[in-house]
Amino acid sequence: MGRRERLGAVLEEHKADVFLAANGPTVTWATGYVPEESVVRSPFEAGALALVETYGLPTLIVSELEQDAARASGLEVLTYPFSFSPDNSATAVADAVVKAVRGRAVATEAWALPAVVAGRIDVKDVSSSIAKAQAAKDPDELARIRAAIRLCDIGQAAAREASTAGVSELDVWAAVRAAVERAAGCTVEMRCDLLSGPRTTLVGGSPTSRVIAASDTVLFDLFLRHEGYWGDSASTFSIGAPSAAVVDRHARVRAALERGLAVMGPGRDVRDVERAIRKELTYPHLSGHGLGTSLHEEPRVAGFGHTALEENMVITIEPGIYDDEPGVRLEQVVLITRDGCEQLSKHDLSLMAR
Amino acid sequence: MGRRERLGAVLEEHKADVFLAANGPTVTWATGYVPEESVVRSPFEAGALALVETYGLPTLIVSELEQDAARASGLEVLTYPFSFSPDNSATAVADAVVKAVRGRAVATEAWALPAVVAGRIDVKDVSSSIAKAQAAKDPDELARIRAAIRLCDIGQAAAREASTAGVSELDVWAAVRAAVERAAGCTVEMRCDLLSGPRTTLVGGSPTSRVIAASDTVLFDLFLRHEGYWGDSASTFSIGAPSAAVVDRHARVRAALERGLAVMGPGRDVRDVERAIRKELTYPHLSGHGLGTSLHEEPRVAGFGHTALEENMVITIEPGIYDDEPGVRLEQVVLITRDGCEQLSKHDLSLMAR
Repeated sequence: MGRRERLGAVLEEHKADVFLAANGPTVTWATGYVPEESVVRSPFEAGALALVETYGLPTLIVSELEQDAARASGLEVLTYPFSFSPDNSATAVADAVVKAVRGRAVATEAWALPAVVAGRIDVKDVSSSIAKAQAAKDPDELARIRAAIRLCDIGQAAAREASTAGVSELDVWAAVRAAVERAAGCTVEMRCDLLSGPRTTLVGGSPTSRVIAASDTVLFDLFLRHEGYWGDSASTFSIGAPSAAVVDRHARVRAALERGLAVMGPGRDVRDVERAIRKELTYPHLSGHGLGTSLHEEPRVAGFGHTALEENMVITIEPGIYDDEPGVRLEQVVLITRDGCEQLSKHDLSLMAR
Repeated sequence: MGRRERLGAVLEEHKADVFLAANGPTVTWATGYVPEESVVRSPFEAGALALVETYGLPTLIVSELEQDAARASGLEVLTYPFSFSPDNSATAVADAVVKAVRGRAVATEAWALPAVVAGRIDVKDVSSSIAKAQAAKDPDELARIRAAIRLCDIGQAAAREASTAGVSELDVWAAVRAAVERAAGCTVEMRCDLLSGPRTTLVGGSPTSRVIAASDTVLFDLFLRHEGYWGDSASTFSIGAPSAAVVDRHARVRAALERGLAVMGPGRDVRDVERAIRKELTYPHLSGHGLGTSLHEEPRVAGFGHTALEENMVITIEPGIYDDEPGVRLEQVVLITRDGCEQLSKHDLSLMAR
């Protein structure tokens, strides 16, 4: 069952005729279209919205400035006039939505819908149902996720290559981005945790001008979005020869990751998977999460909830340990298959940087 | 009159007790606080909101995950529980807003306010008044804008340095980002138009793997956000010796920029300023715009509207010409002073790259 069928089931369950995708990632999920970013235009633009039925072409609702890109998608396109006035923009967007809805019963994500639109149409909030419907991926989504993870692999390799004594965390990050964008042939939205030495115990944080020492360990968690879908990855590596204590900490996290790979499969409850991964380790974050048009999606690999894993879900496994220096985190992304999982991440997880 | 007083005047005009800042840039403008980005957390978080009165400490309304950063600001902080469920998140945010509002009359930006919050309190939409109140800058804002433009200067210099025959547009962009972040000592949100050779006639676009030739011209528009405030800048430069035609095109745009610098001053109508800059040139974008916590703010330097420039407004001047190869754009940012303007941008505008 593809995502249009799952969306149709949500509409049927909530007695709605159409789904109004109210934020960029959901527009991409529901239509395949990746909305343009609008930072250089007007802060008042609503960004692309989409109206989707179970059958038939979705309708993109975009500013007239975005119409060329929208029409290239092959979908139906309804444009609203661009304006530098927030009042005019709000009215224009709301008018366009009302026109597209044509009196039908609308399901939407109320957390994302602007108040100016919500005031003009009756909507049913189906955010939670949509979040669940996004968990299993279609083949076109998997292709994009694989491409994003391939870029993560390239970035992870570049981080190891660039991490030597005397360079700063920011220098390593610059090398990573250059390598990823060279491979992609275009700019890529990219973020990271990049921590060296004592900073590894912070769990997360952007790179700084701290200069890496020969005795340091580097924790690098890279996440990036390419063609609307996220990739995610982490590794922790030693610049010089690691102490026995460091080798032990890294091995314990590696073992947790391997336990995760071993238990991931259809029908498994995320609580059991979480228990298998975490075991004796303590870390202040999830053991993993779904990933798609948003970086963190359902299912969360956590002790709460009772989600059963399903074929075609894409899930990170990311145990860590931060109670002492160095903090260590390792992360891979897997695809749930018919009888287990396929490891999508191919980056080096070994402790020695090179 | 500082921005708190201007905000107070908006509240008085609209008979409201408090202003609810509903998006990140407005929170920064109203409070000085720069909200954390939430891409790695839950897509359902509303992000930081702020409730601001004319007098007294503003109240930040943030997810409990953001409470440490929020409390470090010295402002009042009201937290709402973090949740991975969109339903719970929406309820939590709306509950927190209702609690903070305490029955008072609320003015807000309806284009940005989530529907889940708007459904719980009566609000008056004052988006346009707030947009106007943001135009003139306070000293603390000017300090941040100057710092952001200083980073643009560094990025512009790095682009000239890196642009040689045989390197790709993406290579130049990598060098720019490395230089800017090294100077800042931290990661910086950065975007650009980076176009070489025939691509310069596209007006805008991200860098690609296109390799720069000795006969090329490069158009580079760099915009970045640092500590919540944007900088903006553009230059166009020749890799090798430019033809007489290129020299002429560049000189015409340079003259337009100089005309803009000459006429900018308090009391001038943006329509007259626009006419002075554009004169015989044709380009499909504004001649300039205000800049602050958003990249594009009031006043727009355009033929519509009748805004009179005021002291402490910060405005870009960016004429261009794209009707033939190479497209050329030059941009500087100025501060309107008591008797004219101060040129904040210091980057090289000359046609020869080096």
